[in-house]
Amino acid sequence: MGDNSTTPLTELGEFGLIDHLMKDVEIKDKSTIFGSGDDAAVINNGIYQTLISTDMLVEGVHFDITYSPLKHLGYKAVVVNLSDIAAMNGMPKQVTISLAISSRYTVEALDELYKGIKLACETYGVDLVGGDTTTSRYGLVISVAVIGQVMADNIVYRSGAKENDLICVSGTLGAAYAGLMVLEREKKAFKASKGVQPDLQGYEYILERQLKPEPRLDVIKALQQLNVKPTAMIDISDGLASEILHICENSDTGADIIEEKLPIDHQTGKIAEEMKLDPTTIAMNGGEDYELLFTISQSDYDKIKDNPAFAVVGYIKERNAGVNLIARDQSVNPIKAQGWDALLNKRL
Amino acid sequence: MGDNSTTPLTELGEFGLIDHLMKDVEIKDKSTIFGSGDDAAVINNGIYQTLISTDMLVEGVHFDITYSPLKHLGYKAVVVNLSDIAAMNGMPKQVTISLAISSRYTVEALDELYKGIKLACETYGVDLVGGDTTTSRYGLVISVAVIGQVMADNIVYRSGAKENDLICVSGTLGAAYAGLMVLEREKKAFKASKGVQPDLQGYEYILERQLKPEPRLDVIKALQQLNVKPTAMIDISDGLASEILHICENSDTGADIIEEKLPIDHQTGKIAEEMKLDPTTIAMNGGEDYELLFTISQSDYDKIKDNPAFAVVGYIKERNAGVNLIARDQSVNPIKAQGWDALLNKRL
Repeated sequence: MGDNSTTPLTELGEFGLIDHLMKDVEIKDKSTIFGSGDDAAVINNGIYQTLISTDMLVEGVHFDITYSPLKHLGYKAVVVNLSDIAAMNGMPKQVTISLAISSRYTVEALDELYKGIKLACETYGVDLVGGDTTTSRYGLVISVAVIGQVMADNIVYRSGAKENDLICVSGTLGAAYAGLMVLEREKKAFKASKGVQPDLQGYEYILERQLKPEPRLDVIKALQQLNVKPTAMIDISDGLASEILHICENSDTGADIIEEKLPIDHQTGKIAEEMKLDPTTIAMNGGEDYELLFTISQSDYDKIKDNPAFAVVGYIKERNAGVNLIARDQSVNPIKAQGWDALLNKRL
Repeated sequence: MGDNSTTPLTELGEFGLIDHLMKDVEIKDKSTIFGSGDDAAVINNGIYQTLISTDMLVEGVHFDITYSPLKHLGYKAVVVNLSDIAAMNGMPKQVTISLAISSRYTVEALDELYKGIKLACETYGVDLVGGDTTTSRYGLVISVAVIGQVMADNIVYRSGAKENDLICVSGTLGAAYAGLMVLEREKKAFKASKGVQPDLQGYEYILERQLKPEPRLDVIKALQQLNVKPTAMIDISDGLASEILHICENSDTGADIIEEKLPIDHQTGKIAEEMKLDPTTIAMNGGEDYELLFTISQSDYDKIKDNPAFAVVGYIKERNAGVNLIARDQSVNPIKAQGWDALLNKRL
């Protein structure tokens, strides 16, 4: 494939490939309000609008069943999709599950997977309404589609951020990636020692963040109770760096992210120190936190400032200012997307 | 996996597995009208209801890119989903595409795939509203979700067939499988001869039925114009035998299918003769025709009897009569599902 008419996929990356494939797609049906390019598509149904989002998880790419229990995997597969609906300021209502399964899996293994799927559905009040199962030649592929609902006036896109808006995140950043580092370290140790039980004590929070993330539907409800409608929102699946770039690109703005404001929990800090990594890098690029990144008007600051669930981490600036991380030493560092890119299959 | 706590997937088969995994799933959200178990889930949106269906196509299981051009594959991946919406008497409006792609594929290959996806969307007035791309470790996996719309009063489920209803099919049966047999024969000949061009003349219709099936949205429109609302409907993806069993099981009825009434085109008959196969077996079990199988009240017979697009192939009977094929010699042969079962990965 070395001749000049072929282009390897890695040359474009995941987002580049989607942009390339979707570039000449036009929206024609009058029921389609918004197509590709946000966390979910938006379909008109009158007062309420329908949101739809899909995600695919591939064995050996997104998960490793040597340390991902199948029940957790099923739970996570649903959660990452619910998170996309939250990112539009909507509530998820239904999911469908499609599986491609290699013959290595047993009925009992799939029962475990479905226990997690059903638990996530029950926990978040979502109905499992169908899907498809088929054979695969290699491993397990899970494709989830989620249908959500939002009142037309409440939809929040990635594109609404305005200069001087405050940039907020829910929860903590980097913990899911920190949890993955623990799991990978213990997997190596387990293999080297041929069977010594892994030592996971003291890392419970970050392991749970990796293995059992939760969609921040509580944040959507809290913002509604506080009467705050974000100007832009996205969920943090690929890392804060990647997501703030999406918001700025879609909103045609720049941004400053203030390093000392990043919410990093102590277990993430601890594993970063042990692995000799910079906690800020993990917080910015780790990905899979499934927290919400959103922007609000400064006039809404008083409504959220006392809420421990939110951290203000920066400001939206005009486009020419660029998208920068303001370090503790006040140096200005352009932010680049270095998060998870599923197509390149590498991290950090 | 030989101990008594593990069950191989093949023991249940595709439908058995879905039934097993979904058996304790309850519908709770008031917007969910119908969940798993028909061609699509049904979601309440007032006068219009939303239909959702998903399908997954796996390389080496559902398609072989040595004889399936990527453009045709993209087209077919969309079409099989549109067909599920037609089977609910609805019209498709939006699709999402999720791809898992091995590094063997180039950007140009995906462009070809997307040409077919976009052509199907344009042809049937459906908007491509998003999706997901990721890496796979083996081949290509395509997962499509389709959103459709139907007026609440017009939905047709699998479960509405009544004793004495007429059983109808659109188009012809078995042609897609006949086309596959030609392709497989020529692939073998090509390999044996190390490069002689395959001889596909005289098989154009059945090859097109295999490579470029069409969803019968025209049938849905025609039935509406004829003022016929079927009592039950399903699309023929797994073969007439499998589909009539679904209708009878869901409607709690039996059925007689009359062999001599089966609509089989002459190319299908010709390849059956060449391959020494029974054309009736191909028509009953071939699958992938994506025609519609539906039942109508006898009082609607006059409305459809002169329409060449439809064939009446049998009658709904009471449950105890069973589901039978009445052969040309008047013998009664119980119908068993022998169609494509994607989980067993074999045909006929």
